[in-house]
Amino acid sequence: MLNAKDILAGDQRAGAQVIRLIEDHDPAAFELLKELYPHSGTAFIIGITGSPGVGKSTLIDALITEFRNLDKKVAVIAVDPSSPVSGGAILGDRLRMQRHAADEKVFIRSMASRGQKGGLSRATHDAVIVLDAMGYEMIIIETVGAGQAEFDIASLAHSTGIVSIPGAGDGIQAIKAGILETGDIFIVNKSERPGADACAGELEMMLGMRPPSSTGWAPRVLKTCAIDGTGVKDLAKVFLSHFDFMKKSGRLDVKKKETEHLYFQSLLTQLALEKIMQFIHRSPEFKQALNNIESRSMDPISAAQKVVNCLCGLDTQDYKDRR
Amino acid sequence: MLNAKDILAGDQRAGAQVIRLIEDHDPAAFELLKELYPHSGTAFIIGITGSPGVGKSTLIDALITEFRNLDKKVAVIAVDPSSPVSGGAILGDRLRMQRHAADEKVFIRSMASRGQKGGLSRATHDAVIVLDAMGYEMIIIETVGAGQAEFDIASLAHSTGIVSIPGAGDGIQAIKAGILETGDIFIVNKSERPGADACAGELEMMLGMRPPSSTGWAPRVLKTCAIDGTGVKDLAKVFLSHFDFMKKSGRLDVKKKETEHLYFQSLLTQLALEKIMQFIHRSPEFKQALNNIESRSMDPISAAQKVVNCLCGLDTQDYKDRR
Repeated sequence: MLNAKDILAGDQRAGAQVIRLIEDHDPAAFELLKELYPHSGTAFIIGITGSPGVGKSTLIDALITEFRNLDKKVAVIAVDPSSPVSGGAILGDRLRMQRHAADEKVFIRSMASRGQKGGLSRATHDAVIVLDAMGYEMIIIETVGAGQAEFDIASLAHSTGIVSIPGAGDGIQAIKAGILETGDIFIVNKSERPGADACAGELEMMLGMRPPSSTGWAPRVLKTCAIDGTGVKDLAKVFLSHFDFMKKSGRLDVKKKETEHLYFQSLLTQLALEKIMQFIHRSPEFKQALNNIESRSMDPISAAQKVVNCLCGLDTQDYKDRR
Repeated sequence: MLNAKDILAGDQRAGAQVIRLIEDHDPAAFELLKELYPHSGTAFIIGITGSPGVGKSTLIDALITEFRNLDKKVAVIAVDPSSPVSGGAILGDRLRMQRHAADEKVFIRSMASRGQKGGLSRATHDAVIVLDAMGYEMIIIETVGAGQAEFDIASLAHSTGIVSIPGAGDGIQAIKAGILETGDIFIVNKSERPGADACAGELEMMLGMRPPSSTGWAPRVLKTCAIDGTGVKDLAKVFLSHFDFMKKSGRLDVKKKETEHLYFQSLLTQLALEKIMQFIHRSPEFKQALNNIESRSMDPISAAQKVVNCLCGLDTQDYKDRR
């Protein structure tokens, strides 16, 4: 039987099980999360983002090694928004970080959306609470860095590292990805390739044009070669110094408040939507709308408006009877 | 004054204005969409997707030229889910296709999410209805092809072209992006680069391992060099032959029904959510929950559950009074 005590004790199997419940949108997850929540709030959450092919997984693998050398407990969540179709990433990412599998102070998990629309950022937030309560000091969230879900997930991170490579990620593409504003640390990976210095220089220049951050942190540009570990020790240090900065400046507390508020809003929206849609799907107005669309006697916009207008007229008794 | 008649007559200024209303979530857009909807349903909708840097905009620019040579009216919607932060893409993409600006049978528009969560795929669908009603025969939707919003947008397309380039998009990354299953036509762009044949061969091999499509269409792999137009004429022909196949096999009608149903569901969800959240935000239970979270006397999960549980007790009178 899955219980909060085992998770709080850091049991990896129990942790994996509750994350599975979260992914499956199992209501049992809520009950556990309520117990775990008060024990969360101490981890440092790092976002690592970048286009496919820039070497995020390899870089994170090397970062794990550096954080372990500093005796930190490390958890990784690789978020794959494209998985409703393929699911292929789960295996690939895990294989890359396999060498840490035997280390009981390392926990690696891929999260997919399992076909649920829009639930991925919430599920990732839930998983972070679990890992935080399990005592992981560093929680790394890997995303591909495009799309609304990743944007929401990135807003969870206390520190965001944006990975690019020489050649591919030129200036226009960096602006295009719209991520320049969101990064705290910019990583030029595969720095053994020609053009690495130019790429780093271009980033420095673009960051120079960025309005000064309201947090007072000056973004850093670092070069790494994740495959042989070059520069990753420095990268780990810069992340930790950013954490330190966040704590001392009071920015971390502000960020945590914001995150908590967003978490509440997102839960509230989900639960309210579930409730109202359950009600709607049982209503005769909904069935009528489907018929009207099918017979082409009404356009989908008018049909949806008509169903929702009926919500005004529902009374308590009626609502309770239909449940 | 913006009216449906001008839009149906193909007035580009009026079209741009209504798309702007859609992006702004202006309720006036609904009224126009209801008038336009019955006049939509004849366009061929092409999705073009791929990672940043593969040359999607340049390829679409070349495709426009080919479709114009066949005397087709062409519209392009470049969807940029990352724009809530930067907005930079809008200018960049437009610049690339600028040479068609004077052609009154070409309409190019970028869509950004304007900070609204999850509304981008719906807004894109709305815009497609407008362009379809305006008489555009080919509607090309450009997305970066990762993330839930793009996934939803891709499901709008009758034909999906997936763009990759030699070197960057190796096999593992293609699986990772989870897009192999969703493509009808695979395009190896920048085919002047070394490795183009190998890349095309690898795609052919991976497609060979894919289970046969339920539609009966055998996916095609084509090489293009968008910058000088090599291979783009063939690509245009293959898209048109896929459209032909969709029509003759009856698959197009099935797809249109599915799309219409999804459109209705998405409208219904949005409208129902707006209504219920308006109600919640005015309720004393919501304010109490915010206070409880602020004072740390309740975790956000319990607080959200408590607010939603109160929805059971609302009666019509109460609901109407608070509006």
